[in-house]
Amino acid sequence: MVIKVKALVLENGEVFLKDVPTPTPQEEEVLIRVSLGGICSTDLEMVKGYVPFTGVMGHEFVGRVEIDPQGEFTGTRVVGEINIGCGSCSFCQAGLKNHCQKREVVGIRQRQGVFAEYVALPRENIYPVPVESPDEEAVFVEPLAAALQVLEQVHIPPSHRVVVLGDGRLGLLVAMVLAEAGLESIILGHHKEKMDIVKPLGVTGVVAEEFSEKVDLVVECTGSSAGFQKAQQILHPRGTIVLKTTVAGKASVDLASLVTGEITVVGSRCGPFLPALNLLKRGKLPLSKMVDKVFTLSQGKEALEYASRKGVKKVLLDMEC
Amino acid sequence: MVIKVKALVLENGEVFLKDVPTPTPQEEEVLIRVSLGGICSTDLEMVKGYVPFTGVMGHEFVGRVEIDPQGEFTGTRVVGEINIGCGSCSFCQAGLKNHCQKREVVGIRQRQGVFAEYVALPRENIYPVPVESPDEEAVFVEPLAAALQVLEQVHIPPSHRVVVLGDGRLGLLVAMVLAEAGLESIILGHHKEKMDIVKPLGVTGVVAEEFSEKVDLVVECTGSSAGFQKAQQILHPRGTIVLKTTVAGKASVDLASLVTGEITVVGSRCGPFLPALNLLKRGKLPLSKMVDKVFTLSQGKEALEYASRKGVKKVLLDMEC
Repeated sequence: MVIKVKALVLENGEVFLKDVPTPTPQEEEVLIRVSLGGICSTDLEMVKGYVPFTGVMGHEFVGRVEIDPQGEFTGTRVVGEINIGCGSCSFCQAGLKNHCQKREVVGIRQRQGVFAEYVALPRENIYPVPVESPDEEAVFVEPLAAALQVLEQVHIPPSHRVVVLGDGRLGLLVAMVLAEAGLESIILGHHKEKMDIVKPLGVTGVVAEEFSEKVDLVVECTGSSAGFQKAQQILHPRGTIVLKTTVAGKASVDLASLVTGEITVVGSRCGPFLPALNLLKRGKLPLSKMVDKVFTLSQGKEALEYASRKGVKKVLLDMEC
Repeated sequence: MVIKVKALVLENGEVFLKDVPTPTPQEEEVLIRVSLGGICSTDLEMVKGYVPFTGVMGHEFVGRVEIDPQGEFTGTRVVGEINIGCGSCSFCQAGLKNHCQKREVVGIRQRQGVFAEYVALPRENIYPVPVESPDEEAVFVEPLAAALQVLEQVHIPPSHRVVVLGDGRLGLLVAMVLAEAGLESIILGHHKEKMDIVKPLGVTGVVAEEFSEKVDLVVECTGSSAGFQKAQQILHPRGTIVLKTTVAGKASVDLASLVTGEITVVGSRCGPFLPALNLLKRGKLPLSKMVDKVFTLSQGKEALEYASRKGVKKVLLDMEC
């Protein structure tokens, strides 16, 4: 085994390629050779200072288990959940390790990330990938699970009018998930070519500024604090805003209008991997059309810069070349 | 019948006593001789410019029907719902006239209020008061219904820890409603003598700054935009904030932490009168202890000024003296 491996590291707000020691899997962990990583808006927000993280970046990936002390997963292609709970608090014991106050989060909080040749992860965090799904689709499982979390948290009656606000990476995945759940939705954005990706699923794309109707539910995926106000504008009284956007800083919110309209706001984060893998296996989602460009790990800094440009779709990092 | 009646009027942000024409009940309306009115924080916010209202103020009252063209209610002591819908929109037809976009709201929006000797109201808005309930308790039915709306909107499991944030008028009523629903709650405030009112119901009063535990649900009744931040601080991940506070202006909100904690925020406004009247009839709520002072209608301006002082409990207006 190599002693040092290449990794994309964030230190004091600076991103650079660095040789780091090969992760040593702890008890109940496996060592994974990362194939592909996906750049998420959270990565970009971290570079801007959203969370005070230092270490190897990245949390979306697909790879192959190289060392599993128990043997079960050795050689298996896997994706992985990013939250690692303490295992003993009331949240962990209720199966909500995502909310454990002492949790580590891969590439986000006290845990080395996946933008590296190797990553170590707890066995309970990894999931085998269906044989029929290519790496370019499997790398979307983590954000796809986050999109599915909307359906885990909120009941959406078939008669309700639903808007996905924002045609960015997460917005498109949410639109896909809603369509697969048989719900009709409208995606509001600014990039026709992106909204066209979900058109075959029956999702109507509309330029955000041209939409002035009222709907029952808005999934806010703009990645901008201004999105909340737009969501309020197009929402019926008694409507629901599902908040997916995490941006640094505070937003100016008209709380009184939430009361007057009896609006419900639901914060929504990471989601369940098993249904995401089932969706992947069905193979009906146009995930590969979401890939904008694949960079090598050595081009990581450039890739992050590219991913932060307006209108760019999914940017992947190939760790093997 | 008198041609002119005394009323407390708001015009261009100024409050004054004025002789206004006796209201003429329209078809399907009754004329009510108002006995007592209650001053609500919304009245005080209106004076500060929260809504651009001009006309007779007030929406909390108890009175006696003097003219009912259909006879049924003549002579009956009543309270009244304050929303008057258009009757034909989808909200009105779904029984949600509170959210009709064309609705009138008594003393708040395009409809003359109850701080007057007489008020006209639709027959469908009025409810007879139980014989055993004195006027000093019946005048609380409208805000008591608003407190009950929390239970209409949110399911609170008995195991959940609940905090009522704010020991103001609405906070105390919410604490009463939760206690009557068999739920244990903690009220956070700054006035021992006010929190002591709900102590006999089993509600624990704690000085707000001294409370640093985490709870599952916070009913935000501070009447201040700073309350939202405090609610976020004491909330468990996956917790719920029920927002009752309506204050003018925008608040600075950390939306990302709502996402990270998967917090739910539920705006909550007016509530159902029938269960509020049932609670009143049971006679177990210490409502009369909430009365701070009774002013005459002629002292209305002074009463509003008094009600806006910090720590003051419920202020009533006696329209008959």
